[in-house]
This record gives sequence, structure tokens and C-alpha cells, in this order.
Amino acid sequence: MRATILHAPFDVRLEDVADPVLLRPTDAIVRVTASCVCGSDLWPYRGINEIDKPTRIGHEFVGIVQEVGAEVRTVRPGQFVIAPFRYSCGECAHCRYGVQTSCVKGGQGWGGRDGDGEWTPACQGEVVRVPYADGTLVATPEVPGEEQLASMLALSDVMATGWHCAVSAGVQEGETVVVVGDGAVGLSAVLSAVRLGAGRVVAMSRHESRQAVAREFGATDVVAERGDEGAERVKEMTDGVGADRVLECVGTGGSMDQAFASVRPGGTVGFVGVPHDVEVPIGTMFRHNVRLAGGVAPVRHYLEQLRDDVLAGEIDPGRVFDVTMPLAEVAEAYAAMDERRAIKVMLRP
Amino acid sequence: MRATILHAPFDVRLEDVADPVLLRPTDAIVRVTASCVCGSDLWPYRGINEIDKPTRIGHEFVGIVQEVGAEVRTVRPGQFVIAPFRYSCGECAHCRYGVQTSCVKGGQGWGGRDGDGEWTPACQGEVVRVPYADGTLVATPEVPGEEQLASMLALSDVMATGWHCAVSAGVQEGETVVVVGDGAVGLSAVLSAVRLGAGRVVAMSRHESRQAVAREFGATDVVAERGDEGAERVKEMTDGVGADRVLECVGTGGSMDQAFASVRPGGTVGFVGVPHDVEVPIGTMFRHNVRLAGGVAPVRHYLEQLRDDVLAGEIDPGRVFDVTMPLAEVAEAYAAMDERRAIKVMLRP
Repeated sequence: MRATILHAPFDVRLEDVADPVLLRPTDAIVRVTASCVCGSDLWPYRGINEIDKPTRIGHEFVGIVQEVGAEVRTVRPGQFVIAPFRYSCGECAHCRYGVQTSCVKGGQGWGGRDGDGEWTPACQGEVVRVPYADGTLVATPEVPGEEQLASMLALSDVMATGWHCAVSAGVQEGETVVVVGDGAVGLSAVLSAVRLGAGRVVAMSRHESRQAVAREFGATDVVAERGDEGAERVKEMTDGVGADRVLECVGTGGSMDQAFASVRPGGTVGFVGVPHDVEVPIGTMFRHNVRLAGGVAPVRHYLEQLRDDVLAGEIDPGRVFDVTMPLAEVAEAYAAMDERRAIKVMLRP
Repeated sequence: MRATILHAPFDVRLEDVADPVLLRPTDAIVRVTASCVCGSDLWPYRGINEIDKPTRIGHEFVGIVQEVGAEVRTVRPGQFVIAPFRYSCGECAHCRYGVQTSCVKGGQGWGGRDGDGEWTPACQGEVVRVPYADGTLVATPEVPGEEQLASMLALSDVMATGWHCAVSAGVQEGETVVVVGDGAVGLSAVLSAVRLGAGRVVAMSRHESRQAVAREFGATDVVAERGDEGAERVKEMTDGVGADRVLECVGTGGSMDQAFASVRPGGTVGFVGVPHDVEVPIGTMFRHNVRLAGGVAPVRHYLEQLRDDVLAGEIDPGRVFDVTMPLAEVAEAYAAMDERRAIKVMLRP
């Protein structure tokens, strides 16, 4: 089968690799229906995270179960499944507590070693061996039609991450919510805040195409200014008070500063962007009772609920995919994401 | 009247000062029944916070209203009142949101300038002018007896602060809670966690007298080890998982590190210690979805409820006062606190 391999900065290739096989009785083999490129894949792609050897890449996919190990109980061949961007055993104290991302067997995630020392596959390819299938995968009642495919794929990472940000921040009905970041996660956070009943949702975005998706998702306001200027605009919009919740969906020091400058005393900053050079302003947090909540999204915790919301037509998070390409063009998919020509690219094998 | 003045490090004196008078129609004049020395008073006392001139000090007191301005509606002469360690107007957006500590008129607090530029009094003295009396003071239905005096005084700061820590951390029934810090605030946090229904409350303390109060307040376990060793003990006690909530009641880098090392993935660190050299481990927070919540306690927000709890005999937070002295011995009160000979000293004019 074919899979994506990152050889060096800006050098991704689709290559022939060995077909995966069941290694353990808790494994499943899944044929990929669709996968995608993540903003976080761009860190190694751009060489910011070092690559010391050719490396399989990708951590978001949906597909059809081909084969399951003898101990797998909750999914069966022929079913359509959504895979979270981290796999999890479903049984340890952390999985049961709803933080499957801290699973004791989750190890380094897709493409790294699991908690038992076994290498796990990465997901931008044709077939994936899924460890701990019962604890990881969520099936749909029927194979969804093409029109729901993008939304199901979005649940594997960006939508569940935006949702986690809004839930962690504690968004309540009628509140004013500011979203920092207009990538696929930020846009998903807009959708999530709206779904949680926020009265006013301010998308911070300077890109017209992203502003349009934010509006479609229910943003009531768009602010194009950034940094202190952006925070100043939010203060003006809230009679000098600040937003009840700010959803930080980038992960840089600048975006975190902007989030803290925009939130009201007693409010909450939700954060889901992988922190890079972030210094938490503990003095401000203390003086003004600002909470900080979030982290890497435990997708599996939310997946059944979000799947049902998509099936019921309540949310359509797949709208963040603005480009679809065949897997063979994965190099171009990375380039389009890197150059911000695409919000998010879906790859079809 | 007499009031406490800090002249230089380790040099506090009781001196004659002018009697306070009503300056604004929203003021009240309160004769102090009891005040006390706070752990945070020790920062300037020890010279860690610089003192450039003789300075009135103290921010916790209860007393009897002597006189009120023409616009004061909620308290009247003769009533016993509790004063939070920060005054607040009760009317601005922050006060109405429950963060009276961010009041736009609260300014620098007792002994500093208020939001209108007026100097406000400090409270270790005989009589205090209270600005924004309606937004600041809470009265009791009757003047409480001597046996409830200490508990009422504790509400002005330490008990409400411990409560804020436990509430901010989101302590739920049956949970395991660790309290870092065995000062009056830490002990109050133990009492608060117990009152919120925690199943297991671990007090981190190496002082026998404080351990005894923690046990009286309902701590189920005491851990004497500190730092990594202390966190290791907590991990052992929780099958390697960590505590659901950790209440950080000190404010140093070491105690915050210990808090984060003791909390479970998906758990919460509550914090109320004024941060000194604290670096928030944002990477850990992200990887393991640990929340950070708390700050300077908006005492006024909780004061009616806590007053009622004391009156109903549900809580007895006054137990943290282990020494009572006449105000004339204020210098010795500071020394006893500084040398940790006392947990907390009550001063009676």
C-alpha cells in the first residue's frame, strides 16, 4: 500500500510501504476513506521540529474496518469508523476519567511508540493498523454518505479540538466569546461556542475566506486587528469589560497575550494551540481571577456526542475543508496548507 | 485613636493618629472589634516589599458601625459588620460579576488610593473609615457573641480565601483534594474542601500544631514531605494517578511546582497564594489538560453565605487563630507570625 513519508523539510512523498497486519488481538485494520493535513503537521514539514530520518506522518482519518483482532468487541469489519488523533486503551484511570490523551498506553501517538514499546502507524496512507481498537475507534450506525464524510473527518481532530476549547472555557448561554485564531481549529471553536449558546461570538480573522466560514458557523462579529489593537477592539465592543471567554486556538506567545488582554476579570481563557514560547501571565491571572483551561483535546471523550450531532444535522464542521485532493498529490496538499492557500485539505486515497 | 504603622523592616508601632471622619456620603465609620495580622503583611514587614515611608497597615477587621454617610442603605449604626480585605463599590460590571477584587473603584485597597484618588485607611487600628460601605460591608443580624468573633474575623480574609481556592478548583463530592500550605489560608482550604464534600483531603504539613488543626477541620491524611517527595507520596496514595484537585495556598515557585506534580491529568490546580517567582508549566498543562484557576479572593462575593454558615454552626474557621493579643502588642504579634510561633494572631483594641 501507499503512505506519506516526510523525508526532509518541504519534502513529503507518497511511497509504497508494507501492508499493515494485525499484531495484537486488540488491533483493527482500517482502510482509509479520507485523511487530512493538520496545522501541527506543518511544524516538522517546515523543519521547526527536527526530522532525523524519513518518517511516516498523519494523525487524522476515517475509514472502513477491514479486519479485527480476536479481542475487539465494539467495531466489526464493514463498519465506518472515526479515529481520534490519539489512540487510547479505554481502560486505564485516565481514559475512564475522560482524558484519553493521557492514556498510559497512548505513548507517543500515531507514528510513535505506544505504551508497550510497539511502533504504531501514521495515518496519511491507504490502510492503518489501529491499536486498542475498542478504546480508540467510534463507529457510525451506517456508512455515511459523501455529504457527511468531511464532517466525520473533522471530528477526528479539529472539530473535537475546537469543542474541547469551548467546553474547557466553560462557555455558557448568552455569553460573549472571542476566538483567537482562524485556522480550522479556530473556526471549529466558533461553531462550538455558537452550539453552546453563546450570545455573541467574535472571530479574530484578517482573511476573507476564513471570515466567511466563521460567519457561516455563526460568528456575530469579526475583528481583523491583532495583538493589543485586537484586544482593544474587544474591550470597546464590551463597554471596557472584556469577553466572558476567550478561546485561544493558535499556541504562540502573541496569541496567548492577546487572549489574556481580551478576557474580563473572572473570565476564562480556553487554550488548545500547542504552546510555543508561551509565558503565562500569572500576575494578571491572580489579580483578575482569570482561569486557564484546556490542552490537547481528548477527542475520544467527545466523539460519540459529536458523531450524533453530525448525524442529526445539528453541526456541519466539514465546512473547514475547502480543498480535496487525491492522496497522490499529498506534496501539493502540504504546500497549499503551508502557504495558507487552503484552510484544510482532505486527502482521498 | 491609635493605629499600627510600619516604619521599617521589623519595626511596627502603635501610634496616635487622627480619628477618621466621613468623607463621602457612601462612607461608614466602623469601630474595630478585632483585627489581625496576615501572612501577606509579612512581605513588607520583612522588607521584601519595599517601605519608603511610615505606612499604615492591616486589611482584615470586624467591628461595630458608628456612623454612616447619607447614601448608605444596607448597614446602620450599632450593627456588627465584616469587612473584606478589599473594599468594592458593589455597582460596577466587575462587582456585579462577582469579582469585587477587580472593582473599578477598589484601587489599591486598604491603605492605598481608591479609584477616585482618595487615600483609604488601613485596618490594624481602633476605628476605620470604610469607603463604599454598601458594596463592602456585610452585617450580621445581631452582634455575635465572643465565641463567634474569631470565625467572623476569619471570613474577612483567610476563610474566604481558602473557600475561593476550593470553589475555583471545582472540588466535587467524593474527590481527593491535596492542600499545599499549612498557614491559616491552607487550613481554611482544608475546611472548605471538606465542606464541599471531598472524600479525601490531604494536608501537606510538617508542623504538629498545624497538622492538628488540619485534622480538626477534617483532613483525612497528612503528608509531611515537600516538593517532589511530597508529590511522590500523593501519587502513591492515589495508585499513581494524582489528586483530582490541588489547592495551592502559598504562592512560591516551589509550592506551585509541587501542586502541578501532585494533580491528576484532567484535574485542577486552585491557587490563592500571591505568586512570587512562579512559572506556570504550560507544557504540562497542555499535555495533561490540567486547569489553573483562582486568584485574589473576591471575599465579598462569598461573605453572606459564609456568614450564614458560621451562624448556623456549620463551620468554625476561627480555629486558625491560636493567639490573641491586645492591639498595644502589635509588634509582638508580627514577630510571632514572622517566627511562625503563631498560625494567626487576633488583635483586640
